[in-house]
Amino acid sequence: QSSVSLYGMADVWVGRVKTDITGVGSASETVLESGGFNTSRLGFKGSEDLGGGLKANFNLEGALAMDNGTAGGLSFNRQSWVGLSGGFGEIQLGKPWTPYDDTRSMANDTFNANFASSWTTWLGYEDNPNNTIRYNSPNFGGFSGAFAYSLGEDRASSPNNKASNLVSFSLNYANGPIVAGFAHQSQKVEGLNGIDSTGILTGLAATGKTTYNLLNGSYDFGVVKLVGGVNQAKVQPDGFADVKANEFNIGVDVPLGAGFDIGVGVARSKLESGGTDLSKTTGFSIGAKYALSKRTFTYAAFNRTKAEIIGTGAEVKNTLFGVGIQHNF
Amino acid sequence: QSSVSLYGMADVWVGRVKTDITGVGSASETVLESGGFNTSRLGFKGSEDLGGGLKANFNLEGALAMDNGTAGGLSFNRQSWVGLSGGFGEIQLGKPWTPYDDTRSMANDTFNANFASSWTTWLGYEDNPNNTIRYNSPNFGGFSGAFAYSLGEDRASSPNNKASNLVSFSLNYANGPIVAGFAHQSQKVEGLNGIDSTGILTGLAATGKTTYNLLNGSYDFGVVKLVGGVNQAKVQPDGFADVKANEFNIGVDVPLGAGFDIGVGVARSKLESGGTDLSKTTGFSIGAKYALSKRTFTYAAFNRTKAEIIGTGAEVKNTLFGVGIQHNF
Amino acid sequence: QSSVSLYGMADVWVGRVKTDITGVGSASETVLESGGFNTSRLGFKGSEDLGGGLKANFNLEGALAMDNGTAGGLSFNRQSWVGLSGGFGEIQLGKPWTPYDDTRSMANDTFNANFASSWTTWLGYEDNPNNTIRYNSPNFGGFSGAFAYSLGEDRASSPNNKASNLVSFSLNYANGPIVAGFAHQSQKVEGLNGIDSTGILTGLAATGKTTYNLLNGSYDFGVVKLVGGVNQAKVQPDGFADVKANEFNIGVDVPLGAGFDIGVGVARSKLESGGTDLSKTTGFSIGAKYALSKRTFTYAAFNRTKAEIIGTGAEVKNTLFGVGIQHNF
Repeated sequence: QSSVSLYGMADVWVGRVKTDITGVGSASETVLESGGFNTSRLGFKGSEDLGGGLKANFNLEGALAMDNGTAGGLSFNRQSWVGLSGGFGEIQLGKPWTPYDDTRSMANDTFNANFASSWTTWLGYEDNPNNTIRYNSPNFGGFSGAFAYSLGEDRASSPNNKASNLVSFSLNYANGPIVAGFAHQSQKVEGLNGIDSTGILTGLAATGKTTYNLLNGSYDFGVVKLVGGVNQAKVQPDGFADVKANEFNIGVDVPLGAGFDIGVGVARSKLESGGTDLSKTTGFSIGAKYALSKRTFTYAAFNRTKAEIIGTGAEVKNTLFGVGIQHNF
Repeated sequence: QSSVSLYGMADVWVGRVKTDITGVGSASETVLESGGFNTSRLGFKGSEDLGGGLKANFNLEGALAMDNGTAGGLSFNRQSWVGLSGGFGEIQLGKPWTPYDDTRSMANDTFNANFASSWTTWLGYEDNPNNTIRYNSPNFGGFSGAFAYSLGEDRASSPNNKASNLVSFSLNYANGPIVAGFAHQSQKVEGLNGIDSTGILTGLAATGKTTYNLLNGSYDFGVVKLVGGVNQAKVQPDGFADVKANEFNIGVDVPLGAGFDIGVGVARSKLESGGTDLSKTTGFSIGAKYALSKRTFTYAAFNRTKAEIIGTGAEVKNTLFGVGIQHNF
Repeated sequence: QSSVSLYGMADVWVGRVKTDITGVGSASETVLESGGFNTSRLGFKGSEDLGGGLKANFNLEGALAMDNGTAGGLSFNRQSWVGLSGGFGEIQLGKPWTPYDDTRSMANDTFNANFASSWTTWLGYEDNPNNTIRYNSPNFGGFSGAFAYSLGEDRASSPNNKASNLVSFSLNYANGPIVAGFAHQSQKVEGLNGIDSTGILTGLAATGKTTYNLLNGSYDFGVVKLVGGVNQAKVQPDGFADVKANEFNIGVDVPLGAGFDIGVGVARSKLESGGTDLSKTTGFSIGAKYALSKRTFTYAAFNRTKAEIIGTGAEVKNTLFGVGIQHNF
């Protein structure tokens, strides 16, 4: 009588990664890695009809490292939540994705693949915080919104006796060929177990705040889909100067027919502090997919990302090339 | 041809916990936690009919932390065993629950929820030791018994060249409105990997013995179910004085109809050594459930537990309030 | 629409293990352990028909410790791969078994059980390396072959700027009562994350190479199955003298009818360096199986293994006796 359903994704690629650092030299390696296109995963989910349109839902999803069998043990570190849904929308309690992350992934360059230029250039953020309450609105003629609040649960280690928290919300529109979204996320670190697993503040200060504002969208012309977005991130470490990131990405996904698709993307992130430019990171990515079925495709990927420290000439170049296969189950 | 069945429970709650320590102050925190009512879990189990009434059975069950996706990796740390069952009863080999734990949970206050007063006041014990052989008798007109023996496998680290062990057995009676049970458990720690994961001895001595004797039961009057139990625990650390715990709990579970149930419990544990009272812990718990279906309910919980060190005036007060949802799959 | 299938094996035994060291004494322990016959496991696998004879396949399989519920967390450390199969054979990407390991297990003494004499005497090897590309040929009238290449991905830590690697291939023949195979494996350790998880080189040198050449087979006479094999291993640690291992095993598996089977094996491994004998390890194993069904059997096992350091009189004797049950799901 078990109602749970298993699902997952197995994505493995073989390729070559290269890092160039000015004045230091370059290093390259041939690798077989998991999750070239999307992160491999194993999940369990289920839904129970409670009558009157109300449902009880849950989801447990863990990332898999297909190349080494998940060395650290299977952990439902991607999603783990339980909730209720009905005419009012949906409530999720646990560790869901943030609305900001959903909007970010909804219209991203190069098929939103893991090797997309925006993922290798833009500032990191917390995408699935622990201890989260999330609300998803119903769909109103294409419009939908979501709100999430995450509890830091670290008052004891906080200098000012407050707990860390994360707030994330989004307003999205999807109708026919148009997808557009606005999303905001704010990560406040007050104590030691702070909610900033991206470690953006770690190098600067123990506590502080990071905020993100994203506007993105896509338009599907049929012969080509245009995607793009702009993002502003602001890091405000306590006791240090603010750092601002101005970021954009743009891309085209082209269906060539017979199961072939090509996606290309360019992205940039510029960091400044007090009006002075600090660094500039530029990424270029191109990917090709060939569908073997609805659940299986092979792909080839290339990404080149260059990070420059302004005024010093110092550069770090990362190059990746790989071919892989993704199977969904 | 796989005969395995998946099952589980997702239980998440939001609430506030508070700790008061006399002369030190108080601290509170808003939390979103897993397993407010019962521990969230994911399990796999199966049974194969071997003919002639004999069955091969197995069970793998791991605890889940729904609020963070099981940070430590999925481990079948709740149950993992394989065995045979038939007219003779059932044999389980591996890591099953102890008979003492089953009887303890069979008639406990406040729905036997994790926030029940007895769980926050009574002395801890080892509930699912490793390396265990368990036998469950058939049911004889309401009577049933169970016996378990656990191997410490730590002879090499034991001063007297003996391995640690755990013995647990129970005699239970369940018939119509009456449930009654007697259970005994004895945990003998001889070596470093001793079977006492509760750590009761750790603070006192490396080796020793802890025994538990429990008598409990419930009577269901229909409009109200009365539950209660008395427990005596004796800690005998090698080279230190014995410590005795005298414990009781009492509770009522009240079905209010339309899916509503209320459970209330009071429990106490008094520790004494050589005729001198050492400490007194008193707990009060109240919980309300509202069934959304046979597999899903929401709940509200309150627990207040006070531990006093006799003669010093020192007190630790813990307060918990939360609301949650539990979904079984 | 999930196509994944769950499967596994639960194998638990109770017994006694004893270690004798000359001049030191002996130690014995009563134990309840997992995987007496075969390693307990939980797995997920699936296959998708892509049309035209092509299939997409995946497999995730983790070892289970049934006696303690997998203390370290469930990890798909036995197999985790995704691939394609068709008329050309099969490609697997991820962490599959090596061809050498398959041939080794195909014709091994004492049912190839974990307590078989060859497993307790022969030199260890890497059986399922990370980051592996494996190809399995189709079956040509009983003949089949396989080839695997594993990437060390540790160039950065390698003194000579090369990555570690593992090469393994096999040529097998199976037709009617005859099974025969040749397999080769070469493990080259260049850097810190070297592919030699067996640690054979660790005690001697950080880097080096170990090669294995195996010839084995079995012939099923019906009333008895004869199995045997010879193996040559060569350890070539950088900066130290080579060590050679000459190994053989021989066994008989006897079906006694009514579900009873008995298997007996003898194996030896002799180590020499520069023409001088270093050590000699001899093992004897006997196992009896009794089938309760196609998926469940009970067993009794005995293994005695003696390792002698040549010329010193020093000996280590290990004795194991146990009875167990294995259930496949």
